Amino acid sequence: MPILVVGSIAYDSVRTPFGEAQEVLGGSASYFSVAASFFAPVRLVAAVGEDFRSEDVALLRSREIDLDGLRHERGKTFRWSGEYGYNLNEARTLATELNVFERFKPHLPDAYRGTDFVFLANIDPDLQREVLSQVREPRLVALDTMNYWIESKPEALRRTLGEVDLLIINDAEVRQLTGQANLVKAAQRVFEWGPSTLVVKRGEYGVLMFTRGSRFAAPAYPLEEVQDPTGAGDSFAGGFMGYLANTGNLDEPSIRQAIVVGSVMASFNVEEFSLRRLSSLTYPEIEERYRAFKRMTHFEDL
Amino acid sequence: MPILVVGSIAYDSVRTPFGEAQEVLGGSASYFSVAASFFAPVRLVAAVGEDFRSEDVALLRSREIDLDGLRHERGKTFRWSGEYGYNLNEARTLATELNVFERFKPHLPDAYRGTDFVFLANIDPDLQREVLSQVREPRLVALDTMNYWIESKPEALRRTLGEVDLLIINDAEVRQLTGQANLVKAAQRVFEWGPSTLVVKRGEYGVLMFTRGSRFAAPAYPLEEVQDPTGAGDSFAGGFMGYLANTGNLDEPSIRQAIVVGSVMASFNVEEFSLRRLSSLTYPEIEERYRAFKRMTHFEDL
Repeated sequence: MPILVVGSIAYDSVRTPFGEAQEVLGGSASYFSVAASFFAPVRLVAAVGEDFRSEDVALLRSREIDLDGLRHERGKTFRWSGEYGYNLNEARTLATELNVFERFKPHLPDAYRGTDFVFLANIDPDLQREVLSQVREPRLVALDTMNYWIESKPEALRRTLGEVDLLIINDAEVRQLTGQANLVKAAQRVFEWGPSTLVVKRGEYGVLMFTRGSRFAAPAYPLEEVQDPTGAGDSFAGGFMGYLANTGNLDEPSIRQAIVVGSVMASFNVEEFSLRRLSSLTYPEIEERYRAFKRMTHFEDL
Repeated sequence: MPILVVGSIAYDSVRTPFGEAQEVLGGSASYFSVAASFFAPVRLVAAVGEDFRSEDVALLRSREIDLDGLRHERGKTFRWSGEYGYNLNEARTLATELNVFERFKPHLPDAYRGTDFVFLANIDPDLQREVLSQVREPRLVALDTMNYWIESKPEALRRTLGEVDLLIINDAEVRQLTGQANLVKAAQRVFEWGPSTLVVKRGEYGVLMFTRGSRFAAPAYPLEEVQDPTGAGDSFAGGFMGYLANTGNLDEPSIRQAIVVGSVMASFNVEEFSLRRLSSLTYPEIEERYRAFKRMTHFEDL
């Protein structure tokens, strides 16, 4: 089944202890779409500027991503620049230029309105709700957000969460959002607001999932070479939602598999800058790393 | 099979966001011994002062810990005081009084010298090596250490590591020890020095184990109430070594089970201050939480 994603497309300039890249394709919607495209058809809603390169359009098309919802606007594409130290869990933002993203109003093509699986990447919570108002009865809505919206638009964010099934967020941010240092208690707070599932991203430490009745913990894959953690969270979300849309099952075993698939996609993404690794990735490589996750976490009963 | 542990016994004064405790039983050897005692006979080598309370001797005896190696010295028992903020992974030491620990020279009773399983808790690496010189051909030697020894006695520590099978250490410290931010590379460095297994403790993020041919990741148990993380690492080590000594198997499946048993013991320990929770713990509770770890980490093949 198709997935709808709304988010940003950016040109990123990134420095890490292992190299740097200038003005490379990035943004939450790019990482999400390419990761999800290995599992399900993706419908992309985003905006780019006149400087958006044809090779980047070609990359998205090569993954058969539906670009009818991609608006080409006057002006420049959104830019982000940042750097990472040896603690690859924390990016330091050096500059953000919103450019065409400043006036971004998501408008869904008619053909997108019946999409069953919706991912609201990290954008203004009012825009996230505007997207939902244009979709007819989706089966699963997932949302990501960040400290900026938690601080500047807490009420709008709370309202949007009321329409969402699944919150995907990093650990520092869920603590900030709920005012709860303890993640078990933070999850209970999130459930009161609407979502029935909380997925907590913890970077190199993996993922924790909470539902009202269960908990699931998946590690991150320990890699010898990590070049650039940018986009890891969105690659995770893309693999996660892509797998769920692929099978159409939303039971707990499927959601657990989807979390591991998401972790696999994130582990590949960080091996190279920008979308380089995801662009060269093959499905057998994904299956092989999934098996490696299985071997890495298995233990016998007492 | 019995286990020999050498380490500290302390009176701790601890403040956390959830309460405080004054002059309560602590120290690496206390936590290790009590945790290990659920699985195997424990032989304890440590020193206490004249102020060591009979109720604390009684607690250790109630767990059938062999105290023939416990020296009662003139002077006061070792004291540590520290506090934790909401980030329970990091203790801030407020004061350390070595007291009788300053002149501590481990001397093994004859009956201890044939012990097959040896845990060298975090003490001076020269003393750790002195213990090993008094043991006849142990089957498994594990060692813990800390930033203080990494900085002040790197050569002695390196020499001791050459006689050790298994290094149990936290993630910041293995990075410091090896000068490698990447844990996969840090593990390779450790293998060059002697140990064939590296167990990396990551607090609330669980444990990673590396051998030359495999990796294993176990999460920590997400708890609703964490009162005091003091002793979590030593409770982990106690459960881990205790389980291995219990079965006598050192193959990879057994080591993985031992890591989960260790994680179970650490998860109980942090629920209350000092050794309170471990003192009231029952074996069926341990089995039940092991099963909860299994449920929490299980996922199906693709």
